[in-house]
Amino acid sequence: MKLFSYFRSSASYRVRIALNLKGLAYEQSPVHLIKNGGEQLSDTYRKINPEALVPALIDGDEQQALSQSLAIMEYLDEQYSERPLLPANPHDRAWVRSLALAIACDIHPINNLRVLKYLSATLGASDEQKNVWYRHWCAVGLASLETRLANDARRGLFCFGDQPGFADCVLIPQIFNAQRFNCDMAPYPTLMAINERCLALPAFKDAHPSAQPDAE
Amino acid sequence: MKLFSYFRSSASYRVRIALNLKGLAYEQSPVHLIKNGGEQLSDTYRKINPEALVPALIDGDEQQALSQSLAIMEYLDEQYSERPLLPANPHDRAWVRSLALAIACDIHPINNLRVLKYLSATLGASDEQKNVWYRHWCAVGLASLETRLANDARRGLFCFGDQPGFADCVLIPQIFNAQRFNCDMAPYPTLMAINERCLALPAFKDAHPSAQPDAE
Repeated sequence: MKLFSYFRSSASYRVRIALNLKGLAYEQSPVHLIKNGGEQLSDTYRKINPEALVPALIDGDEQQALSQSLAIMEYLDEQYSERPLLPANPHDRAWVRSLALAIACDIHPINNLRVLKYLSATLGASDEQKNVWYRHWCAVGLASLETRLANDARRGLFCFGDQPGFADCVLIPQIFNAQRFNCDMAPYPTLMAINERCLALPAFKDAHPSAQPDAE
Repeated sequence: MKLFSYFRSSASYRVRIALNLKGLAYEQSPVHLIKNGGEQLSDTYRKINPEALVPALIDGDEQQALSQSLAIMEYLDEQYSERPLLPANPHDRAWVRSLALAIACDIHPINNLRVLKYLSATLGASDEQKNVWYRHWCAVGLASLETRLANDARRGLFCFGDQPGFADCVLIPQIFNAQRFNCDMAPYPTLMAINERCLALPAFKDAHPSAQPDAE
């Protein structure tokens, strides 16, 4: 498998964790989101993923790259049944997916690099205003996630039960990002305990931005 | 089933279409996103969905409401197997999910009501700046969707094949929103042809914001 990714991209980080948890081998083809005006915007990369976003994954001899991190994770879980990332029961699956989507839809896109760029370049936001913006959406999203997970009986050592899975793949990159922007993480003890347990595991360590070939 | 929704909420609209396509009966419990300072932020509603967002769905005697529109749609497709919304093959499923996520992650959240509110209330953006913001993210997302769908052999009368499904449930509410904000839709003939076909079907007509009990 070939993963088009950027070391610090949260969505790429999710897929790296998923691949590692499932024990699937892959090579990385780095796409630099800042250098050369953003390599993801190049014609070459647009031929691989017309969305001009990372990650994208090519599995084996497939012609077409898969895109959208959550769609890729679902694909991996369907195509490679060992070590499932999602639970078996539809209610539990809906719960775990809702945790992942609460981050992937309601926190991450609003705080993505291209949005922060627009805030400063087009709306003239200061660095401080951008940081406040970032921390605001992060706090709103993480607070409800903390409440939901803290009160859920299905939570174990990880978001769901005692094995890391689909939701953890999305949570840990979001916490990494939040810490980069100096968000106050004290209000989220449940999330931070899960984060600590994940970061101790090889699948998460090997997926960490600092461990990637394109890390700076 | 009981759906907590708001007539104009794009995410609620998605789930209404999915329920209708699958022929599942439901009653609606409207949550007004503007009146009373936003009913979704009330303690009463937070007990149903701590995320303070619509939609939420209670299926039968379940204690817990399901949240996040895409997680609800996946649940409906798993729990009620008739009239599947997703195709059978993992590659095709990944493709269809990536179309849905390209809207649900990369267009909709950035243009959501709460984000537009923040732009004006906290960053002092003018109405015109908010409109330009909306149209910008819409154009970026819809342009890549148009390219991808126009070039995909699996597209039929609808996003995937000749039956409406998962991606159409997400596309049509996004087009409705884009038109509300006067986005120029001329560059998206493929998407608009699908939109026209969908809007002619009862499942989509009955889910339309103007047909809801809380429509204004």
